[in-house]
Amino acid sequence: MKTEKKQLMKMKKKCIIKNGTVREMLAEALGTFVMMSFGLGSVAQVVLGKKEYGQYLSINLSFGFGVTMGIHVAGGISGAHMNTSVSLTNCILGHLPWRKLPFYALGQFIGSFLAAALVYCVYYDALYDYCGGNLTVTGPYATAGIFSTYPAAYMTPGGGFLTEFVATGMLLLCILAINDKKNFATLDGTQALLVGILVIVIGMAMGMNTGYAINPARDLPPRIFTAIAGWGVEVFRAGNYWCWIPVVAPLAGSITGAFIYKLVIALHNQTVSDDAECEDTKENSDINVSSQYM
Amino acid sequence: MKTEKKQLMKMKKKCIIKNGTVREMLAEALGTFVMMSFGLGSVAQVVLGKKEYGQYLSINLSFGFGVTMGIHVAGGISGAHMNTSVSLTNCILGHLPWRKLPFYALGQFIGSFLAAALVYCVYYDALYDYCGGNLTVTGPYATAGIFSTYPAAYMTPGGGFLTEFVATGMLLLCILAINDKKNFATLDGTQALLVGILVIVIGMAMGMNTGYAINPARDLPPRIFTAIAGWGVEVFRAGNYWCWIPVVAPLAGSITGAFIYKLVIALHNQTVSDDAECEDTKENSDINVSSQYM
Amino acid sequence: MKTEKKQLMKMKKKCIIKNGTVREMLAEALGTFVMMSFGLGSVAQVVLGKKEYGQYLSINLSFGFGVTMGIHVAGGISGAHMNTSVSLTNCILGHLPWRKLPFYALGQFIGSFLAAALVYCVYYDALYDYCGGNLTVTGPYATAGIFSTYPAAYMTPGGGFLTEFVATGMLLLCILAINDKKNFATLDGTQALLVGILVIVIGMAMGMNTGYAINPARDLPPRIFTAIAGWGVEVFRAGNYWCWIPVVAPLAGSITGAFIYKLVIALHNQTVSDDAECEDTKENSDINVSSQYM
Amino acid sequence: MKTEKKQLMKMKKKCIIKNGTVREMLAEALGTFVMMSFGLGSVAQVVLGKKEYGQYLSINLSFGFGVTMGIHVAGGISGAHMNTSVSLTNCILGHLPWRKLPFYALGQFIGSFLAAALVYCVYYDALYDYCGGNLTVTGPYATAGIFSTYPAAYMTPGGGFLTEFVATGMLLLCILAINDKKNFATLDGTQALLVGILVIVIGMAMGMNTGYAINPARDLPPRIFTAIAGWGVEVFRAGNYWCWIPVVAPLAGSITGAFIYKLVIALHNQTVSDDAECEDTKENSDINVSSQYM
Repeated sequence: MKTEKKQLMKMKKKCIIKNGTVREMLAEALGTFVMMSFGLGSVAQVVLGKKEYGQYLSINLSFGFGVTMGIHVAGGISGAHMNTSVSLTNCILGHLPWRKLPFYALGQFIGSFLAAALVYCVYYDALYDYCGGNLTVTGPYATAGIFSTYPAAYMTPGGGFLTEFVATGMLLLCILAINDKKNFATLDGTQALLVGILVIVIGMAMGMNTGYAINPARDLPPRIFTAIAGWGVEVFRAGNYWCWIPVVAPLAGSITGAFIYKLVIALHNQTVSDDAECEDTKENSDINVSSQYM
Repeated sequence: MKTEKKQLMKMKKKCIIKNGTVREMLAEALGTFVMMSFGLGSVAQVVLGKKEYGQYLSINLSFGFGVTMGIHVAGGISGAHMNTSVSLTNCILGHLPWRKLPFYALGQFIGSFLAAALVYCVYYDALYDYCGGNLTVTGPYATAGIFSTYPAAYMTPGGGFLTEFVATGMLLLCILAINDKKNFATLDGTQALLVGILVIVIGMAMGMNTGYAINPARDLPPRIFTAIAGWGVEVFRAGNYWCWIPVVAPLAGSITGAFIYKLVIALHNQTVSDDAECEDTKENSDINVSSQYM
Repeated sequence: MKTEKKQLMKMKKKCIIKNGTVREMLAEALGTFVMMSFGLGSVAQVVLGKKEYGQYLSINLSFGFGVTMGIHVAGGISGAHMNTSVSLTNCILGHLPWRKLPFYALGQFIGSFLAAALVYCVYYDALYDYCGGNLTVTGPYATAGIFSTYPAAYMTPGGGFLTEFVATGMLLLCILAINDKKNFATLDGTQALLVGILVIVIGMAMGMNTGYAINPARDLPPRIFTAIAGWGVEVFRAGNYWCWIPVVAPLAGSITGAFIYKLVIALHNQTVSDDAECEDTKENSDINVSSQYM
Repeated sequence: MKTEKKQLMKMKKKCIIKNGTVREMLAEALGTFVMMSFGLGSVAQVVLGKKEYGQYLSINLSFGFGVTMGIHVAGGISGAHMNTSVSLTNCILGHLPWRKLPFYALGQFIGSFLAAALVYCVYYDALYDYCGGNLTVTGPYATAGIFSTYPAAYMTPGGGFLTEFVATGMLLLCILAINDKKNFATLDGTQALLVGILVIVIGMAMGMNTGYAINPARDLPPRIFTAIAGWGVEVFRAGNYWCWIPVVAPLAGSITGAFIYKLVIALHNQTVSDDAECEDTKENSDINVSSQYM
């Protein structure tokens, strides 16, 4: 019995991944998977259930609380970015080493892709009942919108870009504020809930135009999944090649939002007597803290 | 007066149950009773009130906040599993002794059965007004679905199994994350709220197909109650003998979800210098903590 | 300037009420006023706005968050019962001296009556626009239900009594659990939010039959107000003299719910070595704590 | 490299604003901007989306959680009033020096105006699709109500004034309670969430009559924006020159609400042995604390 246990321990030890970056990539993958499974699942439920099993509000709540759950899953390991634009901004702010960015992005893409596949499997029966096996990107029984975002019929590309840019800017601006210990940070251990609420309010206030991707990893991998799973290349062509906007606009918006917060609030909010060196050190210590939960 | 008080004290002392397992069984029963009374009550209100007194969202919220309340009722005594698949997974993970499992399951079943009986009594007038005394399992005025879950018309058994499997997997995966002190656990004293939010989002994202039982104790005892109370054995036959799926699929799913979390996150997230023995001890101390609030 | 300030201080000192019971009565009055203003206001908005400005869910949320706000207003002074059945149960449990009960009840009744008057004034224009100046208790444009509760058309008196009895029992059972430091109490400083959530879930799960008064002070004073303000004595006669049930059933239910919690959970959950005297002292110290936030 | 960094540090240092009042003005501007972007955005989404992308409840939630986010953005710098009537009341209570009031008001107005402009840009396509380029203040396709508040058709000016007066009074009364450390304050670090919930319940219970401006800075700057952006001076004339009421009534209401709380609760809730001087000092220390998060 005891030797058996020791055997198990040895096996267990072999499985342990000691490389920090790989562990972070795994955490990003699982966190993003959780977030996206809840988010995409709720869209499927609203669309396929013809609003009898939830309305637009439940999509907002599901993406928000999905983020909350994802942060609990990955927060202590990788900081639970679950969003390529958050990772990029963290690199620019010096909170994440640039060399880790591809691993974070890869983890997020894998998690998001797998979540799309899971939701497809879970809602397979409902999907075929709804559209009669005819997987379309546009039209009255379009279902591609369950997985990735498409602009509203009235949108211009410029307006769509602006919406994604602004919404992601608000996301980063508020994430920085929620976690800023020198300002009015939320209570430790409640950041996941507060960031979830932030995503809820973004969806309620800025979601109609473009489906608030605000995250390349939320949009592109499920789109690729739909292309493979039967919707075809139309998913990339639809909306006048809309697919690049939810990738590029969030990246640009997130950096802008973060800089606005730094410029208007954080920059001026430090002990005046700090000299350059001292301040530098401080910011460094900041990095470790921030990367824990942003 | 003083002797009277002493008498009362003596009587009180006699009533005190010192056996830990019986106390835990009682706690599981009351916690599950609270959770199920709120959950089933909300389904009754939505169905019998023809969506004028709540919609699908209020069912999601009620089961979620019902879980929150149940955790406050039983959390400090038994860990407030209130879910046979959570108890089973805890046994497998070594957080609960196997000999306690039948008592936990029994407590949960009693609590759930009594809650079904209570909701039946509270909504007796509304029920008879709604269906004219004709208690049916299917058809336009079916009411068995107030108590136990039935698959949507479009569901295949395989799809139903998968849905319950996945939803319970997400439940356990996230419960472990919410309580993992080495990762990004929620603030002590807020676990009940966070697990409630988790159940809300599961209902909003994965509830349409099967009614998200994700718990044998949520589904089977109310089903038995309806069989007795007048709906007859049809409750077991309906949906091509659906009744076994909400029992088996959650058990399988919960174990899988827990192992995924352990494998992807928890396993690699420990001090590297731990040797086997030391780690073993640690895990043991973990058990006590976990069983407090999982 | 300085003498002026001293004058002001003197005047201020004169106004200070040193009598604890009067201060508690005032706190109960203001807390209940806040809770009822939000609660009744939301019913008015839903009814008079013809569900365009909120639906049944917003009534649930408003009463719940109204309770949250009322607890913040009165919690530190009187314990924020805001509910005569909570006060009565506290007396029976020994958490509130019996001599204070009339003052608590009076404060609650005054607060609730004033809230009804306020909501009447705020919604005066909407009310007259809605019913054309014809204040009725029943019929398609009935408005008495904005202020006090009436049973659904299908309810029997027995069913109505049971509903109020059960719902208030659940209220007390869960309030005791939320505040039980020996069990799994919520985080200090979040009790107001949790009790608010409890009231939300009661409304979503047990609200349809009777309008979930679960509190004599929520129902009787607004009923008296409507009798005076123009609806007439019909408010007492309606529903086969329904008016006594939301007064008596909550009182009976609250005691039962509290005793169930004590009997199933709290009684057995104490250090075994406690002898009668020691335990007695402990319970006394409990009283002070509980009366702070229950 | 090192000299480059020093250069950057020097530049950074030059940008740092050391003047406290200017920093506070900037914080008020950004906090108000965040709150209003989410609030107005949600109204746009509900109106232009014809209730398919949110209903009245999502407006309530968005303004509430918008306040939560704004408090996190500005709370540690300026106290995050984001409301001219809150600032005025703080001046009267002695929590904010009078000389700072114009800067706070100016910051709030700038933030609110910019948010209106942002929402106009983000929803430009939807707006023109909805109204065909015809920007009207009244009529079936009126869109001015997206930005500033207008009374319901049935409202009298007196009723409208009363509604805004009462709603703002409730706001201040509860804000004081939520932050009153001598009473039953919420947990530090959760004030933003609780004040957000307060704004949600005000909207659900007192929002229908007038659109619950409860804040001059929420209403006037967006109104001025609409006048400039194409709706014309009709925005000031509409509702019988309604525009002055959401400015004046909140100011009067907020002071009244604060005084009611002070008079009924706070005044009597202090250590009895305090002599005038000692008490005075205490209140001063109060100021610093309060101005942090009110």
